[in-house]
Amino acid sequence: MTCDIGVVGLGVMGGNLARNIESRGFTVAGYDLSAAKTEAFAAGEGRRVVGAVSAEALAEVLARPRKVLLMVPAGKPVDDVIAHVAPHLGAGDILIDAGNSYFKDTDRREAELATRGLQYLGTGVSGGEEGALRGPAIMPGGSRAAWDAVAAIFQAISAKADDGEPCVGYVGARGAGHYVKMVHNGIEYGDMQLIAETYDLFSRGLGMSASEISDIFAEWNRGELKSYLVEITADVLAQGDPDTGAPLVDVILDEAQQKGTGKWMSQNAFDVGAPIPTVNSAVESRLISAQKSERVAASRLLTGPSSTFSGGRTRLIEAAKHALYASKVTSYAQGMALLRMASAEYGYDIDPGEVARIWRAGCIIRATLLNDIRAAFGRDPQLVNLLLDRAFSDAVGARQQAWREMVQVAVGLGIPVPATAASLAYYDAYRSARLPANLTQGQRDYFGAHTYRRTDREGSFHTQWGQRLTPNA
Amino acid sequence: MTCDIGVVGLGVMGGNLARNIESRGFTVAGYDLSAAKTEAFAAGEGRRVVGAVSAEALAEVLARPRKVLLMVPAGKPVDDVIAHVAPHLGAGDILIDAGNSYFKDTDRREAELATRGLQYLGTGVSGGEEGALRGPAIMPGGSRAAWDAVAAIFQAISAKADDGEPCVGYVGARGAGHYVKMVHNGIEYGDMQLIAETYDLFSRGLGMSASEISDIFAEWNRGELKSYLVEITADVLAQGDPDTGAPLVDVILDEAQQKGTGKWMSQNAFDVGAPIPTVNSAVESRLISAQKSERVAASRLLTGPSSTFSGGRTRLIEAAKHALYASKVTSYAQGMALLRMASAEYGYDIDPGEVARIWRAGCIIRATLLNDIRAAFGRDPQLVNLLLDRAFSDAVGARQQAWREMVQVAVGLGIPVPATAASLAYYDAYRSARLPANLTQGQRDYFGAHTYRRTDREGSFHTQWGQRLTPNA
Repeated sequence: MTCDIGVVGLGVMGGNLARNIESRGFTVAGYDLSAAKTEAFAAGEGRRVVGAVSAEALAEVLARPRKVLLMVPAGKPVDDVIAHVAPHLGAGDILIDAGNSYFKDTDRREAELATRGLQYLGTGVSGGEEGALRGPAIMPGGSRAAWDAVAAIFQAISAKADDGEPCVGYVGARGAGHYVKMVHNGIEYGDMQLIAETYDLFSRGLGMSASEISDIFAEWNRGELKSYLVEITADVLAQGDPDTGAPLVDVILDEAQQKGTGKWMSQNAFDVGAPIPTVNSAVESRLISAQKSERVAASRLLTGPSSTFSGGRTRLIEAAKHALYASKVTSYAQGMALLRMASAEYGYDIDPGEVARIWRAGCIIRATLLNDIRAAFGRDPQLVNLLLDRAFSDAVGARQQAWREMVQVAVGLGIPVPATAASLAYYDAYRSARLPANLTQGQRDYFGAHTYRRTDREGSFHTQWGQRLTPNA
Repeated sequence: MTCDIGVVGLGVMGGNLARNIESRGFTVAGYDLSAAKTEAFAAGEGRRVVGAVSAEALAEVLARPRKVLLMVPAGKPVDDVIAHVAPHLGAGDILIDAGNSYFKDTDRREAELATRGLQYLGTGVSGGEEGALRGPAIMPGGSRAAWDAVAAIFQAISAKADDGEPCVGYVGARGAGHYVKMVHNGIEYGDMQLIAETYDLFSRGLGMSASEISDIFAEWNRGELKSYLVEITADVLAQGDPDTGAPLVDVILDEAQQKGTGKWMSQNAFDVGAPIPTVNSAVESRLISAQKSERVAASRLLTGPSSTFSGGRTRLIEAAKHALYASKVTSYAQGMALLRMASAEYGYDIDPGEVARIWRAGCIIRATLLNDIRAAFGRDPQLVNLLLDRAFSDAVGARQQAWREMVQVAVGLGIPVPATAASLAYYDAYRSARLPANLTQGQRDYFGAHTYRRTDREGSFHTQWGQRLTPNA
């Protein structure tokens, strides 16, 4: 049997992607360094699959141009598997890295392989194990000709939005696909932290049970906040622990782990010069959560107010809903602006509207909101910031008082809402025609002779400070 | 004349450092790739200086072991000048990089030069041009034997604390000196942003003039907030513009620039796993400030509350004072914890108490507070977090209500105080024995099978979510 595509790395994600491809009528050759995994894959239920015993055998069985999808852990394993497979490929063949590679690694690999006549597609895939099997969101970048060659397969296996469109599309040059996936994951961190803060406020501030909070999220999932993460929040909070009979969430240790793509986005945004305070505070929050023993010690020493809210419960719940929505919009505004700035910085030519279109289904951050974001970029493909779209400025403006109320209440109760507060501070800073950075520039010129610019004329200026010329005004 | 030390790079910083060394009775050979700079230096007022016409001539005139201090821009210029000078040095000679090098570059250079028998001192120097001339804070790291050899010179030229101690000391192995300088600069960003937010609240919220706000900072500089940055804030705000007669700060453009060490700290802290939200929000704030034209456009579209405060002015000013102090302590707690964690990560063996001792004078962040921080580490050299020291937990605890009030007022007025709010959120998160990261872990296990830990027993657990076992409780 000649196969349409090869899949290298038959772990859970790779195996599920291969089964997904097979289920759409394509023929798939699977190959894993573990012969046992390859055999198990070939012996599985798919009828259009074969196992390859070596990279050479894999190359032999594939139709030209060969398409080889790699699903191995990011970093050295990707380089290793490329070194293992590429020598058996020929000019025009296509390598697809579908893992969570760092975008700069993808830039490098794409350039290296191009010199050998191989086409490379750095491809973000989101949706977890289940998505890989039933339909993920797919973000390929790199060789556009390679995209054309694999589009039929990717469109077939991807998730479909409500309007039937496949959640896949070419997102840009070189490492753009993995860049977009990195931003997806960072936004996911932000969404999760915003939800966690809301849960904390209801739990500690209102004394609500996991089950009661689950009901709220389930209700929110029927409106503007409808999204996969809000949906599973309701599920997670509703889950019982068979051992203790308690809500399972109540016995889960409160130390959040992370795998690094959120961190990458935070670090890279500083290089690009894009402010993404919502995501940054989400990453920071995971780090603080990991300092559990310190926190337990600190809780005995550091004082705070009573965390019990004595005001109107319904009003606070409604304010929290508006705060979550406004914070989320603000976080996406930051993320899409980062995409725009990074695209210019790295020459990726990313279309934020196309990215929003892809994210509408299949991926972890899928949400009704993505339809609205796509529509905003449809109205203005050059939109500099989502908050400058009239529909979003109106939507957030209508919620900003409630947003403030939620933050003020949490601050008063001593319940940390860093991502919600950082989102609001971003909103307030972004809408400030004048910020106090003039003082910062004055200080920098004072101690470091760094010079400053003026509002009333061009040029760089330096002052001999400290002479205290008394201003007239 | 045989010289005690050579200085390579006779720009403003290098020239001032050389003049400082000469003024303490040492003999100095100056060398710059620009012959004109070298000549101007040699013809200057110092009596114990000579100019070297080449790296070879420099090496010839220095006493053994030779001590060569480099003051050139970070990055490639440092590698270039090392390549230029090192061939003329011999075993046991000492190279000192006194610029703002990235600590990992210093790690690399120290190791490379050690294989050639040369000793390397990556040395942070803070104090600006004026400090370089009259007495900076000096943070040398690397070869301890090299430190012993240059200690007499560094102690002579450094700033002196109120108790007479020189603000210099060996801070740790390899790149530790530049790591400590990086953290110094990041903390400086945090301090400056906290001050800027206070100024903004007084200016926009209370309608105070620059001169009135200057008076407040001048008064604060006589108490617990006494510090170089508060002092120069008063000066900057008091400065008049000879051209317009207005306060100079009012005509300075509100786009803050940066040179990168604050950004380095933010990026590295994510690698180390240390939460430093105060500094991060300061770096983010500079980035938002740079988006001036976007902000002007957004100010016409995005709505907010009235920014005029109608409550008690004296009470708010007092609350802002407490908020600034508490935020600053919290920021230093984050920074010192980062030092501890980075020291373990990189094997630097940094003593945070010694770092606080060095920072007491000469550097930009010099402050009365550093005496208290040094004392805290004196009480407990293994102190995990400054907030766990009783004096600081009491000091911040006494201010936490006022701190909340300041943040609540600013949030209500729509005046962004991201660093102050992030500091408070850090305080509240750090003192939370239980954070909502349990929900985060549940979500991660739900969509990614990442597993979670439990509070009631050891092990990693995975749940088949969504089956909605109804909990008893």
